[in-house]
Formats: sequence, structure tokens, C-alpha cells
Amino acid sequence: MEPPVKRRRPATTWDVPASNIARNTFNPIRSIVDGMKLTPNPDKPMIALSIGDPTVFGNLRVPDQIETSVIKSLKQHKYNGYGPSTGYESSREAVAKYVSTEKSPVTSKDIVLTSGCSGALDLCITCLCNPGQNLLVPRPGFSIYKTLAESLGIEVKFYNLLPEKSWEIDLDHLEGLIDDKTAAVLVNNPSNPCGSVYSKQHLQDILKICDTWKLPVIADEIYEHFVFSGFDYHPMASLTDTVPILSCSGLTKRFLVPGWRLGWIVIYDKNNVFSQEIRQGLLCLSQKILGPNTIIQAALPDILENTPESFYTETLEFIESNAKLFYKHISAIPGLKPVMPQGAMYMMIGIDMEHFPEYKDDVEFTESMVTEQSVFCLPATCFEFPNFFRVVLTVPQDKLKEACERIKDFCGQHYQKKPLTNGVKMNGHHPE
Amino acid sequence: MEPPVKRRRPATTWDVPASNIARNTFNPIRSIVDGMKLTPNPDKPMIALSIGDPTVFGNLRVPDQIETSVIKSLKQHKYNGYGPSTGYESSREAVAKYVSTEKSPVTSKDIVLTSGCSGALDLCITCLCNPGQNLLVPRPGFSIYKTLAESLGIEVKFYNLLPEKSWEIDLDHLEGLIDDKTAAVLVNNPSNPCGSVYSKQHLQDILKICDTWKLPVIADEIYEHFVFSGFDYHPMASLTDTVPILSCSGLTKRFLVPGWRLGWIVIYDKNNVFSQEIRQGLLCLSQKILGPNTIIQAALPDILENTPESFYTETLEFIESNAKLFYKHISAIPGLKPVMPQGAMYMMIGIDMEHFPEYKDDVEFTESMVTEQSVFCLPATCFEFPNFFRVVLTVPQDKLKEACERIKDFCGQHYQKKPLTNGVKMNGHHPE
Repeated sequence: MEPPVKRRRPATTWDVPASNIARNTFNPIRSIVDGMKLTPNPDKPMIALSIGDPTVFGNLRVPDQIETSVIKSLKQHKYNGYGPSTGYESSREAVAKYVSTEKSPVTSKDIVLTSGCSGALDLCITCLCNPGQNLLVPRPGFSIYKTLAESLGIEVKFYNLLPEKSWEIDLDHLEGLIDDKTAAVLVNNPSNPCGSVYSKQHLQDILKICDTWKLPVIADEIYEHFVFSGFDYHPMASLTDTVPILSCSGLTKRFLVPGWRLGWIVIYDKNNVFSQEIRQGLLCLSQKILGPNTIIQAALPDILENTPESFYTETLEFIESNAKLFYKHISAIPGLKPVMPQGAMYMMIGIDMEHFPEYKDDVEFTESMVTEQSVFCLPATCFEFPNFFRVVLTVPQDKLKEACERIKDFCGQHYQKKPLTNGVKMNGHHPE
Repeated sequence: MEPPVKRRRPATTWDVPASNIARNTFNPIRSIVDGMKLTPNPDKPMIALSIGDPTVFGNLRVPDQIETSVIKSLKQHKYNGYGPSTGYESSREAVAKYVSTEKSPVTSKDIVLTSGCSGALDLCITCLCNPGQNLLVPRPGFSIYKTLAESLGIEVKFYNLLPEKSWEIDLDHLEGLIDDKTAAVLVNNPSNPCGSVYSKQHLQDILKICDTWKLPVIADEIYEHFVFSGFDYHPMASLTDTVPILSCSGLTKRFLVPGWRLGWIVIYDKNNVFSQEIRQGLLCLSQKILGPNTIIQAALPDILENTPESFYTETLEFIESNAKLFYKHISAIPGLKPVMPQGAMYMMIGIDMEHFPEYKDDVEFTESMVTEQSVFCLPATCFEFPNFFRVVLTVPQDKLKEACERIKDFCGQHYQKKPLTNGVKMNGHHPE
């Protein structure tokens, strides 16, 4: 009864191509960094200011209390089995309590636990966007948005951030990108790589555009509460009664445990927009991987409720003091223009490329800094923002000072006061 | 210069549909079980023989030694940061050592660590198959293959397993399904839900077909070494010099820690077929999620090298003795036909439906067994194989005996000696 099957002939050679998804999954940081010649100066020990991992230097570490929670969870022998694919009820309850605000209360049913914040972003992007649609993402911005979206044939359209306005979004540019195929707007606050923390007013302005065009928001809030003195963190969901928001976060940054892969999605949906399909979609997608590590899940209520406030404040004070120190030193170097961050753990530094005519761009500039000074900063081409570089602020202070000295020496040796008439290069604030 | 952007008008109502991937991600077990009326008999405590999680009854548990390894890893404060996306070098080395055989040696570069074995299967299926292509999977078989494939628009075609031949593959049927669009063959050995363990000869016969048609194999070997006395486990890769194989496994079953989400892919590729694109594809895909929990990763070498042999043998002896006990009792019940397993931790039991005319199928049959006897067995419709049900063999022995008694009572009450002339039902060995 069935139509005859189209049979191929037995084959003589092996040919196993990768799928389109695999071919389209592309990590720009890896491909840029792998393409660089990173040969440190053998006379100087390497200082890597490139890795967005607060644990690499060993100076910042998870408090004993959190370790004790994990050991307690392990020793109960009750959390080795499969958990529900969205996470244990008690763990989701703890996250709901942790993220709820008076204006944006949520309960356990609004939480999906994931394998790290990148797992949360993956689920949200996969659930909200179809191939052929587009997602609006920040430039400069964290490269994983592009990696995740393009993997599935979803286009990313970059809206500009304005360094001269502490990396606020160019709202006109953002709104101008919206078209029939726009599925969602991704907002990262506080930001990697910028360290910006948006004001209530700015977030409300962004939300107004999303409301006008009825676009849901994916809020990458992994640096929530990671703000310096004088600034406030506002969860986007606390500022709107209309725009549905999927907020992504996790233990990763604030608790200094990126390797533990414990992330979450919070579904903010006051008007039941996501209840039509998105909640169910996230639930179904979570069944592909079956949740994050259960030992960490089971420790989550204890971690979120009982981590001492002093742990957070000490971490933040350290990073803020590093930011100030770094800013002071780098500001004084001719040819470099740091933008003072307001939170997170990064600083972006502009390079006046016309004063460094030897170098084509930020990639060559940072490559040469490794060769001569053994200091590695990530070229901001990795964040689609050429002629800047990013430094991490979690480095021990002696190393940071040493790095500043070396960057100063490097720039001093290569700075040219008068731009050459040939080979003038534009400063790349708005790379379009 | 750019074409005018097609701008949509500001919208007045919210409409946020889920993506096709989210809509197509479908867990058949969930939807069948959620559709059942599972109301236990209030006079009998519930015995769930349905959940493929060896930890649920508390009788089987991870040895103290493994817990100590994890605590040691945690207390070193060195494994909280991001690991490489394919896993720590030392952890991958340990897996390579653990899975290598004389005929199929691998090294750390052939290992990708993943978030559980389902994460491993997800990466392999995503990397090998494009939408519109098909993947050959066993029937009966574990439902996640279908869930993962159909989520991405990849078709699954079911090849038959033969209960009368201890669930060997119907090779002619398998070969007949191969067409121009077949991307890979998935083989699960030892098997869930069948508990079958294939002989060397049978595995070689399967491999011969794959070699003829030049089809790579995804070997779901999560139950590796999980075999009863008198049977041997042969890794598929140890039996071929030509067919490239991606083997998926992890700590989940053998080490009784499914919740820890530590899985792996082993790339067996003697003739560099996967080196063209597949290795790179798997690496790229692993960068979407950034590896499994690092604390468990770091404990992996210790776990794989130092877990006492007695732990494995005791677990297996327990399961095998349960299998024998269960088989003996169930064989004696008119209307039921158990198939003795050779490994893993499951048994499939056929229902002679013509002797139970009250029930339309295995779903109604097992539903009624909950209502009357508070015993829940998974209807094998969940595995695309109607008129069978699956029991798990990890249950404490007193509960198992009690369950046998109740199943006997249930069948005794509903068994009809002579098939009715109306309403005859076929036994569903080959549900096509």
C-alpha cells in the first residue's frame, strides 16, 4: 500500500557531512582567538585579562557555607535520581522567592531550571524564534546570542549601544530594526562586555518600544545585583505591566560558580501572553535535557536563602575598587579611552587607532600586546565592536597594577602623536 | 543602499507563538501517562514499577567512595570555573581509558562530555541529521530518540525488534527501511525497555548492513557492562574496522546517579570519516551549553578508576535475581508472556489481549491495574509497542514479590479463557 521507497544503492565510500545546525553553530570568540598568534614574551609572566570567569585567579571564591550546602545535599542520598525536567519544586520555589519583587511576583510554576545561563538563553531563543525570523541583540554584546540564534537559522540584528552614554541603547536605531520578522528583543543588563547598568528610565523607554511593537523580551540578567555604589539594579519585569519577559540568570556570576551549570528562566507574564504557547514550549524543550545537576539543585534553597550578605558586598567592593584603579591608570594613557563601568565585572577600552598606525585593528593591537607584554585583553571584535578591547576586573590587585604598567609601556612605545596622512583609520564607535 | 525594511505597524494585541521546534518537541511517555487516569486503590500502597530511575526506592545507592570523590573535588576550590566546552582534559582522558578496548582504543580527543546521556544523544542526532532526513531507531525503543529527532524536523523510522528472538533486530526490516534520506542508524544495546544484550554475531550483522550502506551508527550504550551472568557486553566499536560510531553513555545508570547529568560521547573513527566534519560539528554544538557540572567532571577520574568492582557486581546480582524472580512469577500467570532480559534493568511483558477483552489495549490494561491493585507498569505504547508493558527490576525484593501477587490477582480476575467471538484483538508483536 505504501509508495515504493526510494532506495539508494549500496555505497562504496564514506561521506558523513555535518548537519546545517552543526555547521551554523559558530563561536566568534573562539574563531577570532584561535586565529591570533598568542606568543607571550618569555621574560614576562602572562596576565590574562581576557576570561570572563571570576574564579580563574583563585582570589575570588565561593564561600564555605555554599560548599557545606552542597555536601549536605550530597550526603542525604536523596538527590541522585532524575529530577523533574524543569527542576525540583522546592528549588524552583527558592528561585521564585529570590527573584520576586513587589511589582513582579512569581511562583515556582514560573521557573525553569537549566544547565547554566547559556542553557536558559538557548531554551528562550529556541522557543521564541523560528528560522527566518530575527532577534534583536546588543552591539557590543555577548557572542553567545549570535551563536545560539544562527545555529538554528535565526537572524540576529544588532542594535547599537552608545559608549558616550555609558552604553545606553540607541533607541531610534533599535526601533528602526524592527520588522515583520522580529520575534523578540534581547536586553542584557547589567552588561557583558560593557559593565553598564541601565537606569529605571532607560529600561522603561526600552519597554515602551517593546510594548508598541508587541515584542517579548529576553532579559539576560545573569549579572543581577552586580552593581557598583550609587547605581541600582532594576529587574526589567519590575518596570512593566504589559510586556511579557523571559529573564535568564543563575548561580554563575554572583555566586562565583560558572562551572556548576545552574541557570534558570523566570517567566514574567502578567497578562497570560506566554500561557498560550510559550510556557508549554519551554516545558517541552526542557524535556530534551532533563534539568541541571540535582545535587546543586537540592542545595539551591539553602544557597539562595543563607549566603551571607557580606559575601556579595565584599566581592562587589573588590571589583569596584579594581574598576576605579584600572580606570584611573588607563585614562592617563594617551591613545586609550576607557568607559567607566557601573557594574558587572568588565571594562571596555577604546583604542584611538589613528594613533597606532602599525595596527590594522583591535585584534592586531591586542595580539601585539601579548607578544611584547604578555598581557592578553579580548579584542572587542569578539563582541562585534572593533577598535575596543575588554578587560575583566576580577584580577588580583597586584596583577592588575602590573598589567596597567605593561599596557602603559606598550602604548608608549607604539603611540604616534600625529596621525599619518596615509592609512588614517576611523575610530570604530559605530561600526556600520 | 539597503533595501527598505519591511516595517510592520505597531500592534494592538499580543500574540507570541511558540517556535516550530518547541511545538515539535514532544515526549510520548509524558503525554500517554498524563492522559491516563492513575487513581490507586486506597487500600493498597502504590508500587511504581514504571520509573527507569534506579535510585527511587532508596535500596540502590552510589557508594560512599564516589561521594567522597565528589566532596574532594568540591573542596579543592579549583573546579568552580568554566571548563572547556567538551570537558576537562583529565576527565576526558579518564573516560577514554575507561571505554578503550584493545580493538577500539580512543584518547581524550575522542571524548565529548555532555549534560547526561540525553545531552549526548541530542548532540549526536543534531550533528548527524538534517531536517527532512531520517534516523532509524528500534521499536520498541526509548522514546527520547523520537523526541530529539522530531524536535528538529528529522523523521524517525522504526525498525522492528523480535521478542521471540530475545529482541534481536529484524535485519531485513532494518535494511528495507534505508533510503536516500537515511542519515544514521541508532542501536541501543543493552536495551531499554527490552533488557536485551546482543551477541557478537548479531552486532556484526548489524554493522555489516551499516557498512554496505555506509551509514554511521549512534550507539546508545548507557547500559554498557549492565549484563547478567552468561552474557557478554560488546561495545559496537570493538567489532568493526570500517563503520564510524558515536557511542553515548555516562555515569547515569551504572553508577546510579542519573540526576548528576554526566554523560559523554565517544568518537570511534578509525578511518577519519568523522574527521571531515563531524568532530568539528560536535565541538561547535558543545559550545552552546558549555559542558556538564565541573565538580562531577573533576571527580570523574577517581570515580571511573577507583569504584570497587564489588559495587558493580552487587548491583547486577541484585537486578538479575529480581529478573529471575519476576520472570518465574509472571510466567505462571495465564495471559502474560514475559521475555527474560539479559541485562539492563527492565523486563518487557506481553499481554494476550484476546484473553482480556475488557481492555482495548495496554494503556487501559495498566491503567486498570493501578485502579484495582495500585501497581503501575509503563504501557509499552510509550515505546511504540502496544500490548506489552515494561517493569523496572530495581525494586526492593519484598515490593517486587508483593507486585507479582497483585498482578496475578489482577489477571486472575480479568482473564477470559475462551476468546469472545466479537472483539477479538490481535497480539501486538509487530504493530504495523
